[in-house]
Amino acid sequence: MAQDDPPYRRTDQPTERRVEDLLSRMTLEEKAGQVVGTWAGERGETHDIPAVRNGIVEHGFGSVAAFGWAGAAVSEPREVVEAVNDLQGTAIEETRLGIPLLVNVDAVHGHAYVEDATVFPNGLGAAATWDPALIERSAAATAREVRATGAHQNYAPTCDVAREPRWGRVQETHGESPRLAADFAGAKVRGLQGEEIDDPESVLATAKHFPAYSDPERGQDGAPVEVSECVLRNTFLPPFEAAIDAGVESVMPAYSATNGEPAHSSRYLLTERLRDELGFDGHVVADWSGVKQLHQSHGVTTGWRESVRRTREAGLDVGSVDHTVHVEKLVELVEDGQLDEAILDDSVRRVLRVKFELGLFEDPYVDVEETVSTLGCDEHRELARKTARQSMTLLENDGILPLSGDETVFVGGPNADDLVHQVGGWSHHEADGLAGVTVREAIEARAAGEVLYEQGATLTEERDVDDAVEKASQADVAVLGLGEGWYIHEFGPQDMLGTDTGEWPTRSELRLPPAQRRLAEEIHETGTPVVGVLLTGRPLIVDWLADHADALLLAYFPGTEGGQAVAETLFGDCDPGGRLPISIARSHGDLPQLHDHARHPLTLGADEHPDSYDPLYPFGHGLNYTTFERRDLELDETTVRPDGTVSVAMTVENVGSRPGEDVIQVYGGQKTPSRVRPERELVGYDRVALDPGEARTIEVEIPVEHFGFYKPGEGHVVESDTYAVTVADMEAAFTVERVGNRD
Amino acid sequence: MAQDDPPYRRTDQPTERRVEDLLSRMTLEEKAGQVVGTWAGERGETHDIPAVRNGIVEHGFGSVAAFGWAGAAVSEPREVVEAVNDLQGTAIEETRLGIPLLVNVDAVHGHAYVEDATVFPNGLGAAATWDPALIERSAAATAREVRATGAHQNYAPTCDVAREPRWGRVQETHGESPRLAADFAGAKVRGLQGEEIDDPESVLATAKHFPAYSDPERGQDGAPVEVSECVLRNTFLPPFEAAIDAGVESVMPAYSATNGEPAHSSRYLLTERLRDELGFDGHVVADWSGVKQLHQSHGVTTGWRESVRRTREAGLDVGSVDHTVHVEKLVELVEDGQLDEAILDDSVRRVLRVKFELGLFEDPYVDVEETVSTLGCDEHRELARKTARQSMTLLENDGILPLSGDETVFVGGPNADDLVHQVGGWSHHEADGLAGVTVREAIEARAAGEVLYEQGATLTEERDVDDAVEKASQADVAVLGLGEGWYIHEFGPQDMLGTDTGEWPTRSELRLPPAQRRLAEEIHETGTPVVGVLLTGRPLIVDWLADHADALLLAYFPGTEGGQAVAETLFGDCDPGGRLPISIARSHGDLPQLHDHARHPLTLGADEHPDSYDPLYPFGHGLNYTTFERRDLELDETTVRPDGTVSVAMTVENVGSRPGEDVIQVYGGQKTPSRVRPERELVGYDRVALDPGEARTIEVEIPVEHFGFYKPGEGHVVESDTYAVTVADMEAAFTVERVGNRD
Repeated sequence: MAQDDPPYRRTDQPTERRVEDLLSRMTLEEKAGQVVGTWAGERGETHDIPAVRNGIVEHGFGSVAAFGWAGAAVSEPREVVEAVNDLQGTAIEETRLGIPLLVNVDAVHGHAYVEDATVFPNGLGAAATWDPALIERSAAATAREVRATGAHQNYAPTCDVAREPRWGRVQETHGESPRLAADFAGAKVRGLQGEEIDDPESVLATAKHFPAYSDPERGQDGAPVEVSECVLRNTFLPPFEAAIDAGVESVMPAYSATNGEPAHSSRYLLTERLRDELGFDGHVVADWSGVKQLHQSHGVTTGWRESVRRTREAGLDVGSVDHTVHVEKLVELVEDGQLDEAILDDSVRRVLRVKFELGLFEDPYVDVEETVSTLGCDEHRELARKTARQSMTLLENDGILPLSGDETVFVGGPNADDLVHQVGGWSHHEADGLAGVTVREAIEARAAGEVLYEQGATLTEERDVDDAVEKASQADVAVLGLGEGWYIHEFGPQDMLGTDTGEWPTRSELRLPPAQRRLAEEIHETGTPVVGVLLTGRPLIVDWLADHADALLLAYFPGTEGGQAVAETLFGDCDPGGRLPISIARSHGDLPQLHDHARHPLTLGADEHPDSYDPLYPFGHGLNYTTFERRDLELDETTVRPDGTVSVAMTVENVGSRPGEDVIQVYGGQKTPSRVRPERELVGYDRVALDPGEARTIEVEIPVEHFGFYKPGEGHVVESDTYAVTVADMEAAFTVERVGNRD
Repeated sequence: MAQDDPPYRRTDQPTERRVEDLLSRMTLEEKAGQVVGTWAGERGETHDIPAVRNGIVEHGFGSVAAFGWAGAAVSEPREVVEAVNDLQGTAIEETRLGIPLLVNVDAVHGHAYVEDATVFPNGLGAAATWDPALIERSAAATAREVRATGAHQNYAPTCDVAREPRWGRVQETHGESPRLAADFAGAKVRGLQGEEIDDPESVLATAKHFPAYSDPERGQDGAPVEVSECVLRNTFLPPFEAAIDAGVESVMPAYSATNGEPAHSSRYLLTERLRDELGFDGHVVADWSGVKQLHQSHGVTTGWRESVRRTREAGLDVGSVDHTVHVEKLVELVEDGQLDEAILDDSVRRVLRVKFELGLFEDPYVDVEETVSTLGCDEHRELARKTARQSMTLLENDGILPLSGDETVFVGGPNADDLVHQVGGWSHHEADGLAGVTVREAIEARAAGEVLYEQGATLTEERDVDDAVEKASQADVAVLGLGEGWYIHEFGPQDMLGTDTGEWPTRSELRLPPAQRRLAEEIHETGTPVVGVLLTGRPLIVDWLADHADALLLAYFPGTEGGQAVAETLFGDCDPGGRLPISIARSHGDLPQLHDHARHPLTLGADEHPDSYDPLYPFGHGLNYTTFERRDLELDETTVRPDGTVSVAMTVENVGSRPGEDVIQVYGGQKTPSRVRPERELVGYDRVALDPGEARTIEVEIPVEHFGFYKPGEGHVVESDTYAVTVADMEAAFTVERVGNRD
């Protein structure tokens, strides 16, 4: 930096001054380029690195997705670094103003599309830990790995609340509870962004997909989410509100429409709600086809030009990978007087601001040795292992688990020895680029007795079932890795998976395919105890396993360290303390099954209606190897202010013979709300580790506002009323005192 | 009438003068009684006629449900007349002002709870005729039968649009299309109310259940319907708007909540939307437990008193069967200054007004001979037969139908010989009070060959399957009456049906129970061709029958004349011209399947998503015994005004060898709407009868507004744009010209 540098180059200038100075120097074309991104890789057409380099020179794209996503051009760490430094150098050296690129990635559960990276459990598994502090640490580790590869923005966290188990993106969510999802969204934002975004180990977080994407019609990815204002606000917005409270720097709209408006073109949503009401002040970045879908599929605009205008007027700042066409249409619209340049300027300001704050003008390049030593480092993998361990959710156990270690163990099933299936979607898709070991490998390493292996079935087809049955019959126990494989979105893409349209997993079928079921049934017939291990992104309907397996462990998509975590759990090296963040239904006809469904009439009387909530496994379910006794529920106050806190105390004792971790779950319910509300919903929780015989008083501090709700026309209210608090089978109550008027 | 009678007694006075005069003479207690009803029968507690008589004397109830509903005290026509004249006499002779009672019934498909009455196909079957003019005539016949028994208000038509096939009240609806449901709602209102309500053969119609009841969560009756404003307006309100356009005199709110508000206590819905915006000026009558559910199940009020206040302030006029408690709370609330008496007065005015208009002050009694000669008279039953015939929807036919008449016919299944199952819910529940014949009886009467019968299975249990198989194996064809039985609401009540909670039919299971499936499968195994006849209220998932039956006929709940109509159809005495008013899904996991689902992105590309709409049988499907050729689609104009009409013309020719009826279905779709809209939705239709070789030019006149939609903030819009019109595989287009501004 020299004194005669222009103000935008000088770090001694305030950021706003640098932004305004740089903006004032930009041509219309440069501004348009700055708020549009491009990509390197295969996405219908192919962009190789040289082509992207040319694009940057020609159009001045402000951002690039060069790696860290499903179709990226490069995934090997050294190639990634070479590419990113190359592109960054192009932007800096070969454009008129030398504005550095913002590089973005899809690192939703670790920097998982880059080889050798640490892959954490995906969202549903993360939520099963009920430990946001731990997940904040894993997000911070992810940020370090992302930043070490020269990327600056992560399209995470997923803030979608999973109300539709058929949907293909349930794996990325933090489950069905708005409270749990909000806590994990906030934790991930804090972990990714660190204290300040000028921290060289932090990246921008992106809360997605605003405002409601996760309850599409028919479970179909991208289909409308036509929920009422109350449901939108009380069910879907809390994680976004938590992300905004945590300072999230960007928000990504949903592909889907709500109230007939695609989120990408909704001024009501992106400006009136998101900015004006919720107070978001970062930038809004389009999802990958979010702009062109307006004309190509939603059908609400006539073409690119109108789509660009509508999204810009709605409040979109960045067209993430729209490449040349978005830039050209922006320029045309402003030149033709159809788009106010001030709208464009505001978006440019938001982009430049984060680039200054990230320090990209000063330090844009990465060092390959640093990259290689950070990706998948021991510390991160240990954290991933801990996360995976904590996520393990034991659904059934007749006593077969934990294994002694001396048994002859049969291992089979499509997911017992497949690292790609184990990491699940939004990860590198080739086993040899993935760190970690499979369930089979981890069992073989741990078992003292003999381990027999035969796959028996792929996800959808039988493979030497007879051999598998024969081997299983010789074993003391059969561990079957079942479930789903790698997929993204609506269970594709086919060119990566080699599947056909509608091949399982598909949205209409949550049961295991016949091949997997037959394998389990035939092995069960031999009399060898069956331990089912489910590696899956969705809460599958597993009624047969629930009835017949001797134990059933839900491992979610546990990441690179998941094989190890499963084996440790099976052998009792750690206690399964995960709890379901989502209900598991008995049948498709019972969907949706939600623990916090609203109160409603039973028109023929309470005795004549099957229960409104009668899942195979309820939200919050999970067994341990030890036993916990909870007693003496007490509240610190019986009358509180709406802006106060309730402290819920109880004694928890480990009355079993093994150390273990319990999750205290506090449910709240208002007695007479002015709007229809759930009988009970999760309001607070705590995870506690106790040694055998240890008793401890646990206090869960819960802001009273967690008991409130959004009321149309009034905003978030906590009404003066009586509130029930339940923990396990204990109940207490408190009163919120009247503050001001309530009808 | 004498000149010294008070004005309210004088027919030479205008109604409004009579209303005000009578109102001015009423005490607070009398007003409160006038807007509350009672009932005679069994409903948790028992009210016999003498008890009701006492209640009328003591509380001055304004209305009574004395018969014509599921738990009514009387159903035999002479007893009905005796009871109604007795109660009416009590009100007139033994109360201070002698105000006659308004007597109400649940005559949703004929006056079906009264013995010997004509029972028409229930709503779904009625809609399958695609012939609103016919249904208007059947509603007029129902009005005559209702009025002949001394009742004046019918809690019909059902205006709910069936978007959730699991729901137990699908049978009452007119299917999934807002257009079809609106047309049938309007037709039924016109039929029931006649030209003027002073017509002695007309009754008040009641549009129910406002505004959205038919898409409850989990398919559970009474559960919330949390849809967006756009869906509420575009999908659920059109039938209510049609009913209001037709002059409907009363509206009944839904049990369910929408946007967190139970409809019964929603001022937003009952006053701001229903009266202020939609222009409804009749009275709002509570559904049977609608008021007390606010405290008993929705949990939004603390008890009866607050429930009465909230509903009254919301816009409720009549507490239908709330009996003493509602009267008492009303009096207390007004006396305590917690409810404005002007609100009560308005409700009293609305009730008195219809009583004057119906002529009840002059002619309140009925004559039993008139009653007996009207109920189930030949004219009405012939109309019911025609309706049932027109509703018959042939889903599959490999050529086995029509039968020649000379075959040996096996008849079996739970619904082949059961009149109670055949009429379905919202009807008298004992066969010996029902007119008509069963499918078996009608086949036996018609067949020239031998008819063998064995039930083989009840709805849920096998019954001598082997005997059935043995007999079927001797026959040339096996006709199996399958499906559901009599039920109302959530598949009860148990005390009438002798079922257990969750016993099929139940909301989570749309497949036939194993007993029925086994019967069909075993008979199919014999090689005897199987003709399935489905008598059911819901679109059951019948994939096995679709694949294996030689023919499959959907008869809905066809009413007293349904057995006859089925037999006539099987033997080809009439042609099956019914068309599905609702989609039939392939599996529970595919739900919902809706022909008019909104356009949306396919996130992985069009080739990778299973179709958004891929039902087993699509909306509009139905086969004939003859073949129709449609050609030469033409529009009269290619540019029209938003308030204009499009005339869609085409030639239809019967190119087969039998007379038959085709239903021309016109679907519309806007090219680039400003909100997300369906690719196609039903906008018009016509049913035409053609002899073999006959060709005719059919013109379907469609108001252009049918192509428009409700847009938040703007109301119903017809945007200047291009619109596609499709009929079968033909397509045409027109343009709506610009009138005023559109962005």
